[in-house]
Amino acid sequence: MIKSQSTVLLANIYSPIRELLDEIPPTIIDTLATSNDLTRDVIRHFFSSQGKLLRPALCLLGAQFGKFDKSLTLRIASSLEILHSATLIHDDIIDSSYMRRNLPTVNAKWGPQVAVLVGDFMYDKAFLTIFSAKKQELISLFLMTAGTVCDGEILEYREKDNFNLKEEQYLEIIEKKTASLLSTCVESGALLADLPAEQVAALKNFGLYFGLAFQIVDDCLDFTGSAESFGKTIGLDASGGVLTLPVIRLLSLVSENKKSEVFKIFKSQGGPEKFQYLLNLITEYRTVDYAIQKAHEFTDRARLELAMLRDIPARQSLEMLLDHVLQRTR
Amino acid sequence: MIKSQSTVLLANIYSPIRELLDEIPPTIIDTLATSNDLTRDVIRHFFSSQGKLLRPALCLLGAQFGKFDKSLTLRIASSLEILHSATLIHDDIIDSSYMRRNLPTVNAKWGPQVAVLVGDFMYDKAFLTIFSAKKQELISLFLMTAGTVCDGEILEYREKDNFNLKEEQYLEIIEKKTASLLSTCVESGALLADLPAEQVAALKNFGLYFGLAFQIVDDCLDFTGSAESFGKTIGLDASGGVLTLPVIRLLSLVSENKKSEVFKIFKSQGGPEKFQYLLNLITEYRTVDYAIQKAHEFTDRARLELAMLRDIPARQSLEMLLDHVLQRTR
Repeated sequence: MIKSQSTVLLANIYSPIRELLDEIPPTIIDTLATSNDLTRDVIRHFFSSQGKLLRPALCLLGAQFGKFDKSLTLRIASSLEILHSATLIHDDIIDSSYMRRNLPTVNAKWGPQVAVLVGDFMYDKAFLTIFSAKKQELISLFLMTAGTVCDGEILEYREKDNFNLKEEQYLEIIEKKTASLLSTCVESGALLADLPAEQVAALKNFGLYFGLAFQIVDDCLDFTGSAESFGKTIGLDASGGVLTLPVIRLLSLVSENKKSEVFKIFKSQGGPEKFQYLLNLITEYRTVDYAIQKAHEFTDRARLELAMLRDIPARQSLEMLLDHVLQRTR
Repeated sequence: MIKSQSTVLLANIYSPIRELLDEIPPTIIDTLATSNDLTRDVIRHFFSSQGKLLRPALCLLGAQFGKFDKSLTLRIASSLEILHSATLIHDDIIDSSYMRRNLPTVNAKWGPQVAVLVGDFMYDKAFLTIFSAKKQELISLFLMTAGTVCDGEILEYREKDNFNLKEEQYLEIIEKKTASLLSTCVESGALLADLPAEQVAALKNFGLYFGLAFQIVDDCLDFTGSAESFGKTIGLDASGGVLTLPVIRLLSLVSENKKSEVFKIFKSQGGPEKFQYLLNLITEYRTVDYAIQKAHEFTDRARLELAMLRDIPARQSLEMLLDHVLQRTR
């Protein structure tokens, strides 16, 4: 139900860039061409289930506000998806996930060794492409972002099982690990279209706020989604000890007694009834609602940034993307 | 015994660049500075046991043939060590190694998650530094090399337990995974010193042949070294199913009957007496000697390349380095 609704919406959102976006999957495969058949198998497997191509789409939408070199922009947009995919493959080692997009993860199918190496390979190829653009500001933007994403992931790992994690620390983590790359996607499109500095800044900020909302909603789906429609294991963050906004908020509201019960759930190896207990508390204290409210605040800020831009179909797409993100909670 | 002998030699080899080399460890720490204390702990642990700094040394020696910017060259040379270290940290996940340089590996101490992330972090920082040099040819050289190293590692992984691996396939793997980076180290020094193209090529080729000899000898140490002097687990490649030259040569010499016995050893989970059986065969068929002979052929070629360069102390150091590599077998 939810899925088909979102799909229709996404098709509308993507309509100004539909033709360009159709060229992304072949460009990705082309960029990752290799004579190594193991690598090729892994890459084919990973990309056989298409993601939403959100990162290339953001780059292409950002570029619509000016004139851009089509072939170069397609290569950069594809590299963004490759970079993101490399992160996902490494993430699945980190989270020991078994499923991604309804397929076994690279880690589950080939083990951590292959997951490390193919992730590194994709990472290299993405950077090679970005360097080939020979746009100095684009290269430093990407390198800084790759470092920031990595820093965010290490931070998240360090703060596992930290029951005193504050909301602002959580926001710092998701800004680094998720929002920074989404922001860089829109910004790179803006740079490829040679937009004036204030428009580049507006699109960059849009991406940042959009990214924060995106990750908050994503974290809520851990408690509201169904494994079937979401395609990944429900309650995974909680069982892995990663505290997300609904739990952080819950811990700030409950008694010390309840807090230590929640603590036990995190410390134990999960089990459906234990997770159900956490879910009941989250429902009782309406902390998913609280988190969604936060997401709304960020989409509002993102909308304000868009006001600075020309009212073209791509701007409407970016606006619709904000609604799409909020819709994902239903 | 072996260790102290090599150490003295290395001190002699490094004498023309001693002062520069002393600045490498603080430059590495400086490059990897971060506010994330987990990352800092891991980095401090990893670099607390100094390696031979072979890669920075090669870069600094290459630069001696011309005029170079000291501060920039130090940063690039440090980045080479960082890049190599990132590979080692990821390698130790791949090989499930417990010890490196007589210290627990990052993987053993913090788990694969941290090893993946801190490796990625170091990788990013190295590239950020290389990019800051703003020398286009250096940047593409590094990116190509990073891709090649990765490709070599995937190739090695794919060919695990392949009993029909040919010597030339083995050479392709070690050229990609080891020699390419060592070659890039010398070449980057040459580029930083703005040497004429034919001298850059000579140093690049020197590095390649040196690197091939280096890896062949390293693989032989798996059968001739002692765990104590070598600082890593003996027989590891064999137990992990990676076929190296002494084994590849052995398999080309023995009867089908013996071949299937060797096969069993590889397939079983090792055990000292089984490894001893392999060792006896390798001794009987003198296949370590064969491999060392191959290494000699490569150092001979490397020596020829050096003939094109001015006879300065750095050239003597590079020559001595060839002897040093061959000495490691004893």
